Amino acid sequence: MLNDYLSEVRDIVSCNIRDLIGNSNLIEEAMNYSALADSKMIRAGLIFASSEINQYLNINSKITLATSLELIHTYSLIHDDLPSMDDDNFRRGKKANHIVYGEANAILAGDALQSLAFEIIANDSDLNSSDKVQAINLLTKAIGKNGMVYGQHLDIESEKRRVSQNEIEDIHMLKTGLLIECSIMFGQIGNQNKEELDLLRIFGKNIGLAFQIIDDLLETTSDKETLGKNIDSDKKNNKSTYVKIIGAESANKRANELKEHAISQLQNVRSDKVSLLIDLAKYITTRKN
Amino acid sequence: MLNDYLSEVRDIVSCNIRDLIGNSNLIEEAMNYSALADSKMIRAGLIFASSEINQYLNINSKITLATSLELIHTYSLIHDDLPSMDDDNFRRGKKANHIVYGEANAILAGDALQSLAFEIIANDSDLNSSDKVQAINLLTKAIGKNGMVYGQHLDIESEKRRVSQNEIEDIHMLKTGLLIECSIMFGQIGNQNKEELDLLRIFGKNIGLAFQIIDDLLETTSDKETLGKNIDSDKKNNKSTYVKIIGAESANKRANELKEHAISQLQNVRSDKVSLLIDLAKYITTRKN
Repeated sequence: MLNDYLSEVRDIVSCNIRDLIGNSNLIEEAMNYSALADSKMIRAGLIFASSEINQYLNINSKITLATSLELIHTYSLIHDDLPSMDDDNFRRGKKANHIVYGEANAILAGDALQSLAFEIIANDSDLNSSDKVQAINLLTKAIGKNGMVYGQHLDIESEKRRVSQNEIEDIHMLKTGLLIECSIMFGQIGNQNKEELDLLRIFGKNIGLAFQIIDDLLETTSDKETLGKNIDSDKKNNKSTYVKIIGAESANKRANELKEHAISQLQNVRSDKVSLLIDLAKYITTRKN
Repeated sequence: MLNDYLSEVRDIVSCNIRDLIGNSNLIEEAMNYSALADSKMIRAGLIFASSEINQYLNINSKITLATSLELIHTYSLIHDDLPSMDDDNFRRGKKANHIVYGEANAILAGDALQSLAFEIIANDSDLNSSDKVQAINLLTKAIGKNGMVYGQHLDIESEKRRVSQNEIEDIHMLKTGLLIECSIMFGQIGNQNKEELDLLRIFGKNIGLAFQIIDDLLETTSDKETLGKNIDSDKKNNKSTYVKIIGAESANKRANELKEHAISQLQNVRSDKVSLLIDLAKYITTRKN
């Protein structure tokens, strides 16, 4: 049931990405290569699921916002994989972008994906201007110098030194959590109920952190084919991972606590449509890839 | 007179950048390093000068829009200087960003500058939502996969092959011209007079191309200290430049034609405040650095 839902969202968003980017030059080709690569598009799924709660967004705007977040996520993966960053040559089941298109074009494709994410929000034909500005506000706060980009910087810096559990939670929150929280908030564009928004923000924050902890776990227990990326990457870079710091069992326990805390927020959200978010929270903590 | 004007704009925008970025982590430091480096901030000057024509923007919004464009310009310089791109180690009179902060942080600082450019427009307290969306629309069209980023890709691709005058004009227009055109249009946010906007767009397009032709000329006739960047960079990369293709004299003549064509547009703009734009067009084609 949830898999069908995610699969449907992925198909819609992929189709939109294909229409948007075209294939008329090498930069577009490089953008498509990574944006259309095999991905579960969890963030897109979260936006759709979040918007089910109160249905402020119409289908076109959902697609726009989901596409925007997936473009940002793709840009971050392309840049993170670069030799000067995590130096990964395999991603989403195929060669990393810079392996195929070269470093210069990979950097440029990432840069263009970032601006495209803002462009499509600004160009959406159904959102009103105030909603667009709200979405761009949420997105820039999640990804900038005090968000995702800073998380990636800290992540690289954490190589070859001991970090505490608190520190790694901060890094995970910045690097991954904020964009997942943003997915939940994107689904709420148009909602003015501050109390409900706060509950959903806490839900997003907690599943965001849980998501990254499970990522760390899968890096140590899964294989390259299942994950679609190199599993020895963190080890190679000597990165601190959640598992390395507190062990696999405690990491799993922590992810489950976060999931439960997330789900408990939804008890106070007055909607009979929260079941998809609950299913997604459970999926995030039990996923195998 | 014009120098005083540009200098005042530069001081105001630099002050805003300093307030905006802070200095609380290494990414912010790297962003500041390049954004506050010695720069004429021509694009900021163009926004202010363009807005003088009809005064739709208040001073705060001018500062926001000018800062946004300068952040984008700075991000593009940081990424262009990277070893995998133009491999330049000197910029704005000092070491390139990646020489000081390393490649990973330079890429991340550029990424964060891009998102900050959108963030400050979305957060401006005086522009209305519709104006903000219009500005973000203009900006994304100028810098993305069919704009500046594509221009940088073509610029790199043009190394080691012969390109025609038409081709290099296209590259210059994409890589540099569109952002200068965008500066002129940013100064017109709020103006609904389509005819006037068209004239000013042509003005911007022509001075944008002239600007880059003069850049090519200065690369062959100036020195590193005056320009604040390596003058042998294009030669080292074996890049096609305007001067190489049609010679210095013809290049100069072409820049002057473009300037005259630009200025002629302003005859049909009903405002007694076009003199600053005329001065800027002349400055762009006679500048020494």
